[in-house]
Amino acid sequence: MGKLWDKGYELDELIERFTVGEDYRLDRSLLAADAVGSAAHAKMLASVGILSDEEADALVGECRRIARDAAAGRVEIAPQDEDGHTVIERRLTERVGEAGKRIHTGRSRNDQILAALRLYGREAIWRLLEEAGALARSLLDRAEQSASVPMVGRTHLQPAMPSSVGVWLASYAEGLVDDMLLLTTARMLTDRSPLGAAASYGTPLPIDRSMTARLLGFASVHNNVLAVNNARGKVEAVTVDAVEHVMLTLSKLATDLILFSLPELGYVQLPEELCSGSSIMPQKRNPDGLELLRSRAATVSGWSTQIKNVIRALPSGYNRDYQDAKEPFLRAVETGILALQVARRTVSSMEIDAGRLREGFRPEVFATDAALERVRGGETFRDAYRYVATHLEELGERNPDASLADRTAVGTAGNLNLESTRNEVERIEKSEERRRSEARAALRSLMGDDLRLALL
Amino acid sequence: MGKLWDKGYELDELIERFTVGEDYRLDRSLLAADAVGSAAHAKMLASVGILSDEEADALVGECRRIARDAAAGRVEIAPQDEDGHTVIERRLTERVGEAGKRIHTGRSRNDQILAALRLYGREAIWRLLEEAGALARSLLDRAEQSASVPMVGRTHLQPAMPSSVGVWLASYAEGLVDDMLLLTTARMLTDRSPLGAAASYGTPLPIDRSMTARLLGFASVHNNVLAVNNARGKVEAVTVDAVEHVMLTLSKLATDLILFSLPELGYVQLPEELCSGSSIMPQKRNPDGLELLRSRAATVSGWSTQIKNVIRALPSGYNRDYQDAKEPFLRAVETGILALQVARRTVSSMEIDAGRLREGFRPEVFATDAALERVRGGETFRDAYRYVATHLEELGERNPDASLADRTAVGTAGNLNLESTRNEVERIEKSEERRRSEARAALRSLMGDDLRLALL
Amino acid sequence: MGKLWDKGYELDELIERFTVGEDYRLDRSLLAADAVGSAAHAKMLASVGILSDEEADALVGECRRIARDAAAGRVEIAPQDEDGHTVIERRLTERVGEAGKRIHTGRSRNDQILAALRLYGREAIWRLLEEAGALARSLLDRAEQSASVPMVGRTHLQPAMPSSVGVWLASYAEGLVDDMLLLTTARMLTDRSPLGAAASYGTPLPIDRSMTARLLGFASVHNNVLAVNNARGKVEAVTVDAVEHVMLTLSKLATDLILFSLPELGYVQLPEELCSGSSIMPQKRNPDGLELLRSRAATVSGWSTQIKNVIRALPSGYNRDYQDAKEPFLRAVETGILALQVARRTVSSMEIDAGRLREGFRPEVFATDAALERVRGGETFRDAYRYVATHLEELGERNPDASLADRTAVGTAGNLNLESTRNEVERIEKSEERRRSEARAALRSLMGDDLRLALL
Amino acid sequence: MGKLWDKGYELDELIERFTVGEDYRLDRSLLAADAVGSAAHAKMLASVGILSDEEADALVGECRRIARDAAAGRVEIAPQDEDGHTVIERRLTERVGEAGKRIHTGRSRNDQILAALRLYGREAIWRLLEEAGALARSLLDRAEQSASVPMVGRTHLQPAMPSSVGVWLASYAEGLVDDMLLLTTARMLTDRSPLGAAASYGTPLPIDRSMTARLLGFASVHNNVLAVNNARGKVEAVTVDAVEHVMLTLSKLATDLILFSLPELGYVQLPEELCSGSSIMPQKRNPDGLELLRSRAATVSGWSTQIKNVIRALPSGYNRDYQDAKEPFLRAVETGILALQVARRTVSSMEIDAGRLREGFRPEVFATDAALERVRGGETFRDAYRYVATHLEELGERNPDASLADRTAVGTAGNLNLESTRNEVERIEKSEERRRSEARAALRSLMGDDLRLALL
Repeated sequence: MGKLWDKGYELDELIERFTVGEDYRLDRSLLAADAVGSAAHAKMLASVGILSDEEADALVGECRRIARDAAAGRVEIAPQDEDGHTVIERRLTERVGEAGKRIHTGRSRNDQILAALRLYGREAIWRLLEEAGALARSLLDRAEQSASVPMVGRTHLQPAMPSSVGVWLASYAEGLVDDMLLLTTARMLTDRSPLGAAASYGTPLPIDRSMTARLLGFASVHNNVLAVNNARGKVEAVTVDAVEHVMLTLSKLATDLILFSLPELGYVQLPEELCSGSSIMPQKRNPDGLELLRSRAATVSGWSTQIKNVIRALPSGYNRDYQDAKEPFLRAVETGILALQVARRTVSSMEIDAGRLREGFRPEVFATDAALERVRGGETFRDAYRYVATHLEELGERNPDASLADRTAVGTAGNLNLESTRNEVERIEKSEERRRSEARAALRSLMGDDLRLALL
Repeated sequence: MGKLWDKGYELDELIERFTVGEDYRLDRSLLAADAVGSAAHAKMLASVGILSDEEADALVGECRRIARDAAAGRVEIAPQDEDGHTVIERRLTERVGEAGKRIHTGRSRNDQILAALRLYGREAIWRLLEEAGALARSLLDRAEQSASVPMVGRTHLQPAMPSSVGVWLASYAEGLVDDMLLLTTARMLTDRSPLGAAASYGTPLPIDRSMTARLLGFASVHNNVLAVNNARGKVEAVTVDAVEHVMLTLSKLATDLILFSLPELGYVQLPEELCSGSSIMPQKRNPDGLELLRSRAATVSGWSTQIKNVIRALPSGYNRDYQDAKEPFLRAVETGILALQVARRTVSSMEIDAGRLREGFRPEVFATDAALERVRGGETFRDAYRYVATHLEELGERNPDASLADRTAVGTAGNLNLESTRNEVERIEKSEERRRSEARAALRSLMGDDLRLALL
Repeated sequence: MGKLWDKGYELDELIERFTVGEDYRLDRSLLAADAVGSAAHAKMLASVGILSDEEADALVGECRRIARDAAAGRVEIAPQDEDGHTVIERRLTERVGEAGKRIHTGRSRNDQILAALRLYGREAIWRLLEEAGALARSLLDRAEQSASVPMVGRTHLQPAMPSSVGVWLASYAEGLVDDMLLLTTARMLTDRSPLGAAASYGTPLPIDRSMTARLLGFASVHNNVLAVNNARGKVEAVTVDAVEHVMLTLSKLATDLILFSLPELGYVQLPEELCSGSSIMPQKRNPDGLELLRSRAATVSGWSTQIKNVIRALPSGYNRDYQDAKEPFLRAVETGILALQVARRTVSSMEIDAGRLREGFRPEVFATDAALERVRGGETFRDAYRYVATHLEELGERNPDASLADRTAVGTAGNLNLESTRNEVERIEKSEERRRSEARAALRSLMGDDLRLALL
Repeated sequence: MGKLWDKGYELDELIERFTVGEDYRLDRSLLAADAVGSAAHAKMLASVGILSDEEADALVGECRRIARDAAAGRVEIAPQDEDGHTVIERRLTERVGEAGKRIHTGRSRNDQILAALRLYGREAIWRLLEEAGALARSLLDRAEQSASVPMVGRTHLQPAMPSSVGVWLASYAEGLVDDMLLLTTARMLTDRSPLGAAASYGTPLPIDRSMTARLLGFASVHNNVLAVNNARGKVEAVTVDAVEHVMLTLSKLATDLILFSLPELGYVQLPEELCSGSSIMPQKRNPDGLELLRSRAATVSGWSTQIKNVIRALPSGYNRDYQDAKEPFLRAVETGILALQVARRTVSSMEIDAGRLREGFRPEVFATDAALERVRGGETFRDAYRYVATHLEELGERNPDASLADRTAVGTAGNLNLESTRNEVERIEKSEERRRSEARAALRSLMGDDLRLALL
């Protein structure tokens, strides 16, 4: 079978290669989700009398098999197939017969790709939240263990003030909570059923959009059919923006760790199994994982840019350009998940060298403490500041522990308030977990088992 | 008075010009907010015994005057002032005396800029929500008025299927609701008090961070002091991302309108006072506003990119680089507000030409309808599709109204369900309005009148 | 055999997956080039006495076989191989014996990847120039054929002034000449031998960098060894910038063609074999190729962004981050070549409808002509402009041919001066062809036949 | 006087604010160049008989005065003026009379802005080349002075191999030579006369485009009139791309210097007049200039993105969107010039601490040297590598000088070959200086003195 739109002429081979591009490979990640969406559509068509119950049952049965085969990597899409949607309709027609030729009633490939992207995206966001939560907890655990280990706080990368390992690590946990909030927002925009939007303008058929939404466990129907199609790329962009913010957080952590593990500082040591070597320099143990966390942040930003470049100023209604929003979306979410895992492995296995950390405290680091002592003696801050600034040679060695103990305001070294961050992580996780369970129950009921939609 | 950090040497003139950059001009937008934050800090210092009540009262009084003068554009910042923070401390010292030299106790300029950016950003987001809500309502009103006017729905920019003006305009209202959700998330990240974070590591003073948060009407204290500083740029980026999504929506609308107002289509007509002319071609009435909506979307994306480029892989703790996140943030929110206003002016004043819209319906636009008629007669969709595709010459003139009436599924031309979109707009507006009133009440209580913080 | 840097511990599986990423797949495109670089290195090692001539001959022979196998797609790289460099050293060691263990003397994998990227990049740029030149010629041919066909010139997308198909098509040919100049500059930066730079600091061995440069047909030695490594990503970015400019040119052409092929304008018609259909709408013939030219421009910009994001503010010397500059580079040049081919296919096969083009001339299009007639009668331009602007109703039908004939200044409809553009195209092509022949002669002499280095 | 295109209606105030934007301020930088272009246009109009010689002389005289006033900052543009072109035509009409109303014959504002941007851009590129050349020479001088000072070469930021200060500093000089080549290419695309292109389609008047090109000292006429307008934004983008590459080079240098000036390394020391202080920490001397070099690289990338976002997929012919390509272009070139000056000030005044540099040599840095010694003894490199890798404890202290002396290949520490880089810098400078002198001579002849066109 050729193209779904076959009308007796052949697409130019060059144009075909250009238009199909990587799509046939990318669609493999979406095939299972596409089959799930098709099952819901078939069931709904029967409920409004467009298919018989037998036809719907046969189609749903075959969709289940396709989904299972796809999840197991057993369905091929060839470049000449054009896309995964074609593969599904063809298989349904081959194995189920005439009913297969009816599956596309009241839908377009837009419905299929939109449903697949949202089912996949929703699951991917939940995986991202899972990993981000796990990393946040790992950071909080280590912050707690090393809460009292002093560390020179830096500004402008230069030694600045007394601080602690606890402050440093917990700051990343809090950054991740912000990122989790962004992921949650992306999930909300994703968690709406596109089915029934068709080519962008619905169809003159009495289809039941609420039913397909319910069958797929979506939180709601995405209402306006043109808005559904205009949101193509946009929902993905919001998700990738959230991943980008995760990566920005991890890139900062990577920068810190690359610096802190230099022999000249030696604050942390990475286990050798996280480091790779050089082909020419026998002694090297390079922090490749950290460097790639940094560069992948750069890469994800480029993917975010790609999607937005594609959708900016596009006319409304479906345009083929949307195809090119697919790869950056899929790659970005996969990269985000893997990067969070790498960061967690690193955080949980790195060694913190309290001795080297203490060695880093030179007298100047206590300049602000010295000025504030003068303030306690009644001097104004600005005068005290000027005195210390012009008498730096008077600063002596000090014990950082005392300085840290004086920090009693909430969120400082002496009062980390890790519990509030922990609670925030759990609050988000629980609320998303509830939604996830509902969605899974719906999908299980449709597809017969707890299908892994997203091959992540 | 020179720099706050003056210690007896002069900054190289070239470096000064490079480092100050546009900051002294940009800080004018933030000066009022900075004075508000300073008032809260002073009050808190008195509550923990670092200032006397008299000192605090005098400082708060002068901060009120600075805020009022700044809001009225009466405070100058010169390049050699370095920044607005310096201007404030100097004026407090000049007019209040010794207490002025104590205002900086327990804080750094980071506290000041962070507080100012968040007070400004929070207000800016509320203004953006206001304008986005107004535009959404305007779109819904016009969609309702023209709900039954048929319009050729386009895909690939080509005529595709029967649709309506109602579907078209309401799709943008729904897109804006998505954008409003993003703005709401940005508001949540913004609405946290940074005060007390100091240079990134707090201070060894028993300051009360909850009190300053309460005085400034923030929803909470931003906990970890390093996380506060690491969020610099990031909170702005999340806000600009939301503005970018608003602009992406508007750029699509602009593209549609530029096309639809071509004489060859003539679906809409822009009033002449929205169009400008050519210096050489006497007949021209150009849709400049729409073209600039499109290009400003491009520009805002570049600003978003700038902020993320600045913060990507920066080491933790304050870095001077953050300064360059300021301009793209301020420019983007101002652009977003103005663009929403321009879009609303356009939407509310354009004329829709129902006659030209009907003329656009050629027989081919009904090809899907024809195929679905055959489906109703029992043929499978795929066979019906192929029949019509190879017999396009059989398609005749049709009445689009009938086709639209057949679209009964929710969100389609025959069942627009505008009410749900309207409700969504209101739900977001109400919930934000509640938060906004609380914040305003707090600020009024601190500053003595309903100060316009953000000069938008 | 394991990693080249194997020292008795295993890399963590997760980190390995993260660090290898897509590299093992991408390196397939670079394997032949890597083998060529290795052959040159072996020959040079013999010339300075580090290898015996027999060893060098054996290594060169095997490198030739690897290159041939790689070009034919017969060499596999598995994820656990880490990269293509490892595959080559292993195969040399397996098949040539001890000499294989000497091939890495005086080089690092950085030399290998840099040499491979430059050999590949140089060839890719030449391919891009070939395709850009062919498209420019195709545009000039069609411009010449339709030189006298009138066409409404548009500004702000609105009808503006009389123009011609010749002006329109030739403008793109000239745009491409600009792009070709950028490609030429990229070629110059690429065409320098990196060999001998090693890990970034050379080696304490008396290797002969001029010899390897000569053997590989490079125009010169890239001098400073650290500069060589710091240019990683940068040379690729310059190349991708040039491709981006090609794509920007094509995206504009695509936008014009999408608009001009709308039924409402009908200026051009695309042959059906360049259009694809819809799965739901039987009548559709969509300009997918053009839409994807537009979106690929968006995508290439994102790839350019990725590379620059990766290299911005990286410390000097090799960093693992550079790995992530590889994919955007390879993808962008492949996309550019294919896009140029698609554009040429479209330009050479589209039909221009002179009748519809003439129908587009409404009286207002001649408003400037009318004003200039008044100028010829002695009125000032500004007065004439105002008169016409307020008496548009006096404008009547006119013959566009006469107006075009009056345009006699160089570069206008009446004096296209296509020859100068044609000469410019040829000048660039000839000068690059000369360099290309020299390079090919060198490679043929090294590798024994006219090896296709770049699998494009 | 109102708008040039005034036809009896008022532009909506909101739309006016939105469309004028920052233009009236930005045009101040371009006003002198605009007046120069106008003078050339007037002279040419006389030569083809459209103006009398007296009219042309009067207009040229007034254009000279405008240019001088503008260069001295004595010409105001108000928002209601719309743009600088209007200001010029108005002043010519007010002071010269009727001839002023003829100045716009045969041109459009597009000619004016294009000519102004190219005159400005050309001069700006020459300024950039001047500063880049000066920095390169400064780097080479310091490289020469410290050629023999050993420095640990780093890869992955980790200590890697023996290297020298000479290698390090000269690598940046070579990077700048690459950037200079890009600037040269940008100059070539800029150095073409746009005059006569009018609104995009020329005019039916016998104007002499070669004459205006000659009068303005352009290297050639930009031929196709539509290509001229389609190149708007593109020529600016190519220039900003070149500036971006300059900034990428400087961002790397900044990263190195920030790291190398940490007290933990202490390789270099920045003079205090290049450092600023903290408002809270009395001891701080922060490398703000370097941090801002880093962030400005991020910012310039965003500006480059803005221009490309604006022009991507724009229809051919003038579109108002182009206005938004102006600010990022002007800002980027100004930033580039200033950044190069800051980098030079830093490079020429920093102190290099040879003692601390030597202290950085730990035994592991010599691991490759040790392996290569075993190679000299006959072992294969791979075996030697493995031996050293597993016997790192055998590495002892070594003298880096000896290792450096062994590096005899060109471009390495022992054979820096600075002369070739110096020659390259001079070659580019001389060739551009020749073109610049010619252009200046032409402008002086037109405008009566050596006008500073670009207010940089």
